[in-house]
Amino acid sequence: MRAAVFGASGYLGAELLRLLSGHPDVSLTAVGAGEQAGRSVGDVHPHLASVDLQLERLDESVATRADVAFLSLPHGRSGKLAPRLLDAGMRVIDLAGDFRLAPEAYPDWYGFDHPTPEWSAKAVYGLPELFGEQVSGASLVANPGCYPTAAALALVPLLRAGLVTGDGIIIDAKSGISGAGAKPTAAIQFARRDGSVEPYRVGGHQHTPEIEQVLESAAGHTARVTFVPHLVPSVRGVLATCYAPLADSGTTDDLTGALSDAYKDTPFVRALPPGTLPDPKRVTAANVCEVAAVADTRTGTAVIVGAVDNLVKGGSGQAVQNMNLMFGFDETTGLPTVGTFP
Amino acid sequence: MRAAVFGASGYLGAELLRLLSGHPDVSLTAVGAGEQAGRSVGDVHPHLASVDLQLERLDESVATRADVAFLSLPHGRSGKLAPRLLDAGMRVIDLAGDFRLAPEAYPDWYGFDHPTPEWSAKAVYGLPELFGEQVSGASLVANPGCYPTAAALALVPLLRAGLVTGDGIIIDAKSGISGAGAKPTAAIQFARRDGSVEPYRVGGHQHTPEIEQVLESAAGHTARVTFVPHLVPSVRGVLATCYAPLADSGTTDDLTGALSDAYKDTPFVRALPPGTLPDPKRVTAANVCEVAAVADTRTGTAVIVGAVDNLVKGGSGQAVQNMNLMFGFDETTGLPTVGTFP
Amino acid sequence: MRAAVFGASGYLGAELLRLLSGHPDVSLTAVGAGEQAGRSVGDVHPHLASVDLQLERLDESVATRADVAFLSLPHGRSGKLAPRLLDAGMRVIDLAGDFRLAPEAYPDWYGFDHPTPEWSAKAVYGLPELFGEQVSGASLVANPGCYPTAAALALVPLLRAGLVTGDGIIIDAKSGISGAGAKPTAAIQFARRDGSVEPYRVGGHQHTPEIEQVLESAAGHTARVTFVPHLVPSVRGVLATCYAPLADSGTTDDLTGALSDAYKDTPFVRALPPGTLPDPKRVTAANVCEVAAVADTRTGTAVIVGAVDNLVKGGSGQAVQNMNLMFGFDETTGLPTVGTFP
Amino acid sequence: MRAAVFGASGYLGAELLRLLSGHPDVSLTAVGAGEQAGRSVGDVHPHLASVDLQLERLDESVATRADVAFLSLPHGRSGKLAPRLLDAGMRVIDLAGDFRLAPEAYPDWYGFDHPTPEWSAKAVYGLPELFGEQVSGASLVANPGCYPTAAALALVPLLRAGLVTGDGIIIDAKSGISGAGAKPTAAIQFARRDGSVEPYRVGGHQHTPEIEQVLESAAGHTARVTFVPHLVPSVRGVLATCYAPLADSGTTDDLTGALSDAYKDTPFVRALPPGTLPDPKRVTAANVCEVAAVADTRTGTAVIVGAVDNLVKGGSGQAVQNMNLMFGFDETTGLPTVGTFP
Repeated sequence: MRAAVFGASGYLGAELLRLLSGHPDVSLTAVGAGEQAGRSVGDVHPHLASVDLQLERLDESVATRADVAFLSLPHGRSGKLAPRLLDAGMRVIDLAGDFRLAPEAYPDWYGFDHPTPEWSAKAVYGLPELFGEQVSGASLVANPGCYPTAAALALVPLLRAGLVTGDGIIIDAKSGISGAGAKPTAAIQFARRDGSVEPYRVGGHQHTPEIEQVLESAAGHTARVTFVPHLVPSVRGVLATCYAPLADSGTTDDLTGALSDAYKDTPFVRALPPGTLPDPKRVTAANVCEVAAVADTRTGTAVIVGAVDNLVKGGSGQAVQNMNLMFGFDETTGLPTVGTFP
Repeated sequence: MRAAVFGASGYLGAELLRLLSGHPDVSLTAVGAGEQAGRSVGDVHPHLASVDLQLERLDESVATRADVAFLSLPHGRSGKLAPRLLDAGMRVIDLAGDFRLAPEAYPDWYGFDHPTPEWSAKAVYGLPELFGEQVSGASLVANPGCYPTAAALALVPLLRAGLVTGDGIIIDAKSGISGAGAKPTAAIQFARRDGSVEPYRVGGHQHTPEIEQVLESAAGHTARVTFVPHLVPSVRGVLATCYAPLADSGTTDDLTGALSDAYKDTPFVRALPPGTLPDPKRVTAANVCEVAAVADTRTGTAVIVGAVDNLVKGGSGQAVQNMNLMFGFDETTGLPTVGTFP
Repeated sequence: MRAAVFGASGYLGAELLRLLSGHPDVSLTAVGAGEQAGRSVGDVHPHLASVDLQLERLDESVATRADVAFLSLPHGRSGKLAPRLLDAGMRVIDLAGDFRLAPEAYPDWYGFDHPTPEWSAKAVYGLPELFGEQVSGASLVANPGCYPTAAALALVPLLRAGLVTGDGIIIDAKSGISGAGAKPTAAIQFARRDGSVEPYRVGGHQHTPEIEQVLESAAGHTARVTFVPHLVPSVRGVLATCYAPLADSGTTDDLTGALSDAYKDTPFVRALPPGTLPDPKRVTAANVCEVAAVADTRTGTAVIVGAVDNLVKGGSGQAVQNMNLMFGFDETTGLPTVGTFP
Repeated sequence: MRAAVFGASGYLGAELLRLLSGHPDVSLTAVGAGEQAGRSVGDVHPHLASVDLQLERLDESVATRADVAFLSLPHGRSGKLAPRLLDAGMRVIDLAGDFRLAPEAYPDWYGFDHPTPEWSAKAVYGLPELFGEQVSGASLVANPGCYPTAAALALVPLLRAGLVTGDGIIIDAKSGISGAGAKPTAAIQFARRDGSVEPYRVGGHQHTPEIEQVLESAAGHTARVTFVPHLVPSVRGVLATCYAPLADSGTTDDLTGALSDAYKDTPFVRALPPGTLPDPKRVTAANVCEVAAVADTRTGTAVIVGAVDNLVKGGSGQAVQNMNLMFGFDETTGLPTVGTFP
């Protein structure tokens, strides 16, 4: 099976190259970039020196060379590109936000009108642990955001089990700096970020409606979420600390049991035993999400925590997991479950 | 005025020495330690090489050499020591938790019975921006915890103004590693913490009742707080992200206005303008708390954020501020308002 | 082929488990530890939760269950253990320093007499790019130290080519904190190390004679090395900056050419093009060494730089590479050549 | 005394504002910037919110408002500006490299011809511990670079004492990222630098001739220096590890004694006792240089180490120290000798 990566110069793109170049069933045939076109992969990403390909400007004509396209482009670009690739016969996995929401949400949350709303309904939201069956048959997959992956994998089993209620959920998330992308700005300089902990886009982050939507569609509840992301001084990793009202007299054991049950047969989600809490450090470079929950019965609040590597299970690893399902490979092929630690 | 520091080998103790050695109205006359007694300050803390004193085992006999005692001891020790120092005629500022709570709270939250409950009522909670008048006349001051300082300075003005309600408050706090103390453990090693973001003591941290108590006494409301602290990979700094129900149709401007009004005449609390959010990096080594608030009107939630350096405004700097008030010095003497940045 | 790991509770041990558990030709059958015996691998190393084994106290009776033993024990222990394992029919790869030096060097550099000097001569120094043929036939391999790996791979080709001379070499090395081990001490705490750059064991580090010995045996020159290691605030990675007298009018192109020639057919050493310099960040989690050289013709000094991940090419990865050669597997089996970046 | 700061938007400029705003004998009257002109100090540098001034475009007309000008401008600009300020009657402290070297060195090392070579000879090199008397009478001071400060304070006493020789010196320096400036580039992003150790400008850094010149003028020896700087993942701090041939049978005690003697009456240089080695972390935010030396008698090499905060003793603090001397204030006024630690 032949794969093309659009947008290979960023962090998600590089991580796609790392994973796909080691995937036994995939041949990486085309690597796309804009300004960097013409340079070799090893020149742009020296750690990928062993990937012997050149970056090029790609469009739908790549369909003659590849069966699947991964789109790791700025928001707003894949909405136009994906339909052309689909029309050319490819399957598409979009790592941007362009097919994650209902079209009418884009003006408010992304600041643009969706260019191809008629295609939006054909996209499957690629969170395999929740929507794996739909992914298997999909031609167009909207790969989830990093925050929604960590939050939804933590919350959905408890919502489904009726242990927490969906109204009045608060999600306080912490992300490493790689989540802010590779484009140089004053805000992501080392001297600015080292020693800093900073909230951003309070109440206005575009992952807010994505989280609400996945909670609603997976759990069948209306969900109302106050979402506040923070940047912390690490490179990779997202921790989502979720606060939800306990439905009734649930205990930590109840919550933990529901998470264990939900994920006992999944290869990539690890429900931790009571007394242990997730840490994204433990899943660095692995396609794994750790989840755990504690009932604060004194206040009637469930604290549910999820952790992923934003570039792997919260990004490129999940995209490869979706590809495995779409093409009938074993779900775990080419995806590490052991992280790099320490 | 002569000062003694008990417990000078830890981080809070070292920070007391840094600040007191530069204070124009204070003569540092005695520096206490246990195992390190007999060594010079510069030997134990090489960055304090210019402080020419020896660590010694101290008790109440230090009253002949000092007017005020700062107690930077493990929880449970100052409860016994402080009364003896007070009886010997000294004034006492306790940086541990021994006089912060009502005596009956100690078994549940600290795991021991308060040894001297009769003295507890004589202690003043040393958060000067809220209780400055009582501090001025106090002999025994309970210096607040780092998390309660950041959280209370953020929340109290909005509770007082009726803009948020006190029931169902969630406080998600992030702390640098120095908050875990200087004692070597596997949990605070560099290789363990770098790249890590980890919640701890969910629902059970001893600062929880301290926060509830200060909110209640300062704002006259019952407060119920779910408190979850996290360790992030920085050295200094606490950020408290507080979520409280908006009382009615409050806006970000309303919230910001209430914070600005509350702190416009205080030297150490900085209410940030709309669009800016607190960051402990900016107050590193300064006796400053930054606060700001955003109304998420879509969900009816106020997001209120406070940031301090846990060793300064959240610890030793606040202790010196209390001392200034107790002894009639200008509140700002010897206390930096400009942080070290970057 | 069945493998046993002695000393699995440390960082090198954990990295052996990570690599061996993913090696297609190896079955990991026994995992040894001291105090941690009885616990599961996932309990001691949560990131290795998918390795379903228990730690146990191991001795030479493991020979019934394993063909090769990896010894990741404190210096001084494998000198006694290895002969017993060899006598029991196993092959042994020692990650400690016990078989790296001539026996007479141990009192001065390690502080103990070598317990089994008669076995010392039978050990092969396991730096495959330099001594690959001997490794293939070895029963006992002394796996090199992290600093000697980076320094020797950088220096040897230039010494062999006569481009630099071996007398008066200075090696200034920088290591991440994981190199100091996992045992909690004040010196490796996060708050102590973050922001710190500190030389240690100046002139007295036990890797000094190891470097001199490998330079002499590989290049046939007497080598005299001043070696100063430093701790820098990162987790993984060693950078060795080596300064050697230019033999005559060598240029940067000459030096670079010699490095490229030496490594053009090796899978794990990457000679960088002129203008690029090694960085251990790029080889994090990969079994790769980057090397490069610059001629400072103004001063007659060659600056030659090597970078490895101290836990992989400078430790456990190299041990697996040695195992591959000893057992006739392809040298690259189970070993990543693409690092985790950023 | 009234001070103006040109180039206040960078890190050295901000550090000048921090120090000058707390200096009891200085009134900060003008703060210059280019693109940021018109904004308030607190807007550009939020940690300096208490400095109530606006940035403005400054030229020599500032002489009516200020007695001394600090120039924290890109290399090449102060060479033209300083003479105009001096002609207008001001005294000038230049933090760039424009007056540090003999004019003929600029084309090779800075890439431009010195615009005002006739003024160059009038500049005094502002390393007060070595050239304090000349500084006291100077109108134009060339404030040293961070690397030369650390290296020269470490090396000069041993060269003067004849304990080491000046030919064949190697200086391997490690710097925090703030030394690379505040301008956003891919090279100084958090995700790029965290976990990285990287040499740069090998053999070509413009501080090389500055170091050779100060060693020669202070010690009366010809000095030939191979200088290799590295970036390490911290914010502040420079550590210079210097390797020089031992002149004869010098011991660590001899070297340590010479450093102690040289600095016993200086307030800002701390010669450490044997067994202790410098660490820039200990002098963070302090105007202090730590120095120490070890004799590797086995190889005949002295290892001499200096550490400074590049923004304070290696930059803005030293500039204020120079100002104190130029204007007859006590040398230590307004300059901290206790660092922020941890």
